Amino acid sequence: MISSAPLKFAVALFEGFQALDVFGPLDMLNQVSKTEAIEFVVLGHTLNPVSTLNQVEGVPTPPTIGQSVAPTHTYDNAPEDIEVLLVPGGIGARDLEHSQKVVDFVKARYPKLKYLLTVCTGSALAARAGVLDGREATSNKRSFKWVVSQRSEVKWVQEARWVVDGNIWTSSGISAGIDMMLAFIKHQYGDKLAEDVAIASEYVWNKDSTDDRFAKYWL
Amino acid sequence: MISSAPLKFAVALFEGFQALDVFGPLDMLNQVSKTEAIEFVVLGHTLNPVSTLNQVEGVPTPPTIGQSVAPTHTYDNAPEDIEVLLVPGGIGARDLEHSQKVVDFVKARYPKLKYLLTVCTGSALAARAGVLDGREATSNKRSFKWVVSQRSEVKWVQEARWVVDGNIWTSSGISAGIDMMLAFIKHQYGDKLAEDVAIASEYVWNKDSTDDRFAKYWL
Repeated sequence: MISSAPLKFAVALFEGFQALDVFGPLDMLNQVSKTEAIEFVVLGHTLNPVSTLNQVEGVPTPPTIGQSVAPTHTYDNAPEDIEVLLVPGGIGARDLEHSQKVVDFVKARYPKLKYLLTVCTGSALAARAGVLDGREATSNKRSFKWVVSQRSEVKWVQEARWVVDGNIWTSSGISAGIDMMLAFIKHQYGDKLAEDVAIASEYVWNKDSTDDRFAKYWL
Repeated sequence: MISSAPLKFAVALFEGFQALDVFGPLDMLNQVSKTEAIEFVVLGHTLNPVSTLNQVEGVPTPPTIGQSVAPTHTYDNAPEDIEVLLVPGGIGARDLEHSQKVVDFVKARYPKLKYLLTVCTGSALAARAGVLDGREATSNKRSFKWVVSQRSEVKWVQEARWVVDGNIWTSSGISAGIDMMLAFIKHQYGDKLAEDVAIASEYVWNKDSTDDRFAKYWL
């Protein structure tokens, strides 16, 4: 690995997070931990398992089945030395009251992070925290107009699989988080490890951040 | 949806399950629940959260970070009317003692299921239950030799993204479960819904069960 590569990661959960936003990237990272001394923290409002379900006003047909993931820490007692924070999206990102805790956490911690990564509408939460102001960022394509409405100060990029601006990486919807995380792994730990993880995952890795086959459906 | 389409699904967890084996297919299914009246059960040995971590003899470099998922039921009090059982793989599938509970459950319940779906080395668990005897099935490609060693009575297919034999669907490693589940959704609920889910997931769906780009690495 590169000597400056970060080792302490966290994921920011909230009720109504999108399962694959989280477990696509994290399955890749879990595999990296076979050889790199990574630590990992799962954040929740409380230590109770966090569900992918959430009833959100304005979402007419939310999923009715979901799964729940156990946090290791709360936002209020999160370790101070988190280096990389992953913020997923999901219908819960539209629950402005509940997700405010995540927004506040991003705002408070961003200055101490080495990297901030968002997947899908997770970029709307980062945008609300103000940390994307003046930066290029992308998001879920079906929800793009809503995301843009959350913060006009962001240079929103509609056609991109993922976008890197400074130390903030933002991906398009759901599956795009896997491609972004593999690119992040390559950037941090080298090409061979990223290739090994992609092949072991039997995942056809899209390595081109500009190759977005889904923007067209909602342009 | 097709009137005979199943509605009651369950996933069989065990310590050391592969996160993406589970949450790739389930994120697709969660989206189906926006319009179909699906019910879902998460099975564990106990009701304690089940970790993706497991120390297994013979696995020299297991992942050292993981996440935990909360079951809704135990194997001992699982609902009797489960129609579709999804069995993931992961290093925990190599923990023969711990995973025996899953094997026993598959053996006991298979006669009552409409469909059995496995991802990755989950097919080794189904094989140990005897339900794949005389059938074609596939599995994770890197672990293929180990899987084959678990049960010679199975017609193991090395080169396939997924295999359907009767009411048992088996996929290749990790990401292949997403392609299989989308094909299952198409088969059960129709092409339009499967396409909608794939596009909303911004997932480049491999629709060809014979298109396996990863077998070659370990042939």
